Amino acid sequence: MTDWQAEIEAAAARVDGHVRRTPVCTLDVGGHRFEAKLEHMQHTGSFKARGAFNTLLAADVPAGGVVAASGGNHGAAVGYAAAALGHPAHVFVPEIAGAAKIAVIERSGATCHVVPGVYADALAAARAHEAATGAMQVHAYDAVPTLAGQGTCLREWERQGLEADTVLIAVGGGGLIGGALGWLAGRRKVVAVEPRRAPTLHAALEAGAPVDVEVGGVAANALGASRIGTLCFGLARGVRSVLVEDDAIIHARRALWQEARQLVEPAGAAALAALLSGAYVPEPGERVAVLLCGANPEPDPLDA
Amino acid sequence: MTDWQAEIEAAAARVDGHVRRTPVCTLDVGGHRFEAKLEHMQHTGSFKARGAFNTLLAADVPAGGVVAASGGNHGAAVGYAAAALGHPAHVFVPEIAGAAKIAVIERSGATCHVVPGVYADALAAARAHEAATGAMQVHAYDAVPTLAGQGTCLREWERQGLEADTVLIAVGGGGLIGGALGWLAGRRKVVAVEPRRAPTLHAALEAGAPVDVEVGGVAANALGASRIGTLCFGLARGVRSVLVEDDAIIHARRALWQEARQLVEPAGAAALAALLSGAYVPEPGERVAVLLCGANPEPDPLDA
Repeated sequence: MTDWQAEIEAAAARVDGHVRRTPVCTLDVGGHRFEAKLEHMQHTGSFKARGAFNTLLAADVPAGGVVAASGGNHGAAVGYAAAALGHPAHVFVPEIAGAAKIAVIERSGATCHVVPGVYADALAAARAHEAATGAMQVHAYDAVPTLAGQGTCLREWERQGLEADTVLIAVGGGGLIGGALGWLAGRRKVVAVEPRRAPTLHAALEAGAPVDVEVGGVAANALGASRIGTLCFGLARGVRSVLVEDDAIIHARRALWQEARQLVEPAGAAALAALLSGAYVPEPGERVAVLLCGANPEPDPLDA
Repeated sequence: MTDWQAEIEAAAARVDGHVRRTPVCTLDVGGHRFEAKLEHMQHTGSFKARGAFNTLLAADVPAGGVVAASGGNHGAAVGYAAAALGHPAHVFVPEIAGAAKIAVIERSGATCHVVPGVYADALAAARAHEAATGAMQVHAYDAVPTLAGQGTCLREWERQGLEADTVLIAVGGGGLIGGALGWLAGRRKVVAVEPRRAPTLHAALEAGAPVDVEVGGVAANALGASRIGTLCFGLARGVRSVLVEDDAIIHARRALWQEARQLVEPAGAAALAALLSGAYVPEPGERVAVLLCGANPEPDPLDA
């Protein structure tokens, strides 16, 4: 059994000074009041910098550096952490990731390889690079150092005075929610939010085990893992997963911009969409928090 | 003599629960480390909601409600505050304000009148409305309730743990910096930042009195007052005003988005531009804070 509290405490000590302490606030958007953490302000625009720094700082990184395959946010985080720590990094990104995510990876300091095709093609290229160079492959979500790094986000939020009974968290491969569940250990309720068109955890909870799902929709480039991670699944038994429609994600993203001037990507608005659409309805008096987790939208608003 | 401390304390009590407590954080952008307050997350996307609420709550608002002439942010704030408090509001905006600012005013709940021409034409129309209806005219910056309301921003920041020796604040008509100077009363250094193409305070400090200046440039729709307010000028004697070029504002705005995922309007990035461009160079060890004050960019990123 992994001692998640100990892993996350150790991760917090490692990443201290490398990741940004992201701000928190209370917002009223779409007629709902909730605590928010602006984790999309993290370096490279998503929480993934936490897992990337923890992974690299905990490892004996080889001279060949690190390699990652990514639809965007993970690759940028690995590239940024590697550059900050002085390691070479190669990130393989499928061309369907889009110009904005590719630009974020390129700015991270990584050598960015744009691979024709889809994520599987980028992953194959990353594995070939690993075999040829001895570079360390950094997994996007299903590894203990990754989950422990992401878990520092909820630890930090509690130290910033989180009051909520319930925290809404978007799920793709399960790194962020897995880290949150590992940290909270049942002390607060966690609600998983997934796009109906990318229901990895929902399908796994129904099947009783991780299963492959078809993924698509507006948040697929960040929440489009095809199968929930086994570590997350082990932590998520009994968690409620709610599904949100693409329209609800788009509406929540617009409301967050129009009412609080935070411009996140669709995946970053999915958790809020559960609250605004009524996919999750709090009990009377239940205090709710929403983790805003990514802001690498397509198109980039300054290149539009 | 106005007792600014007392005025701002009274304003804070009035606007409590009506304005948002905007988050603060420490950022590292463009190689500079500074404390930031995300005041662009205020209702209607700028600090102006503070002055608008204080003005309306302190006044005996007539049945005809309120009227304002505005290039954008002030009008949206007045409209929002009036709607929240149950007063009718008419906002006269020049068509050159642009589609995004006009849309923000329309969403505020005000009746928005788009006036052909420039700001002076909108002001004439607002005065005609005032004369015809008895509506209360709400000034954008040169009134005690307005400055006192804006002063609650620095009061709030200090209660959130502001550590900086020096606070950089953008100047248009002087409402925000005037409120800050009134609150801080010399306890911290305040640096005024103005676009070279809209130097209202800079020109007044040189001339020894408020004077009309020609205004233009990328931030003119928010910082383009033609003359510094007399209240602000009275508070700003001895303040250092630094000028920033339009290019520096554009660069700072891009850096803030790329490195911290905050998308402000040009005026909202002017104070940061002073730090990033070297227009203001802190002494060794000097701790600097930057007030991010507005985020109603043209075009609206979700309508682009």
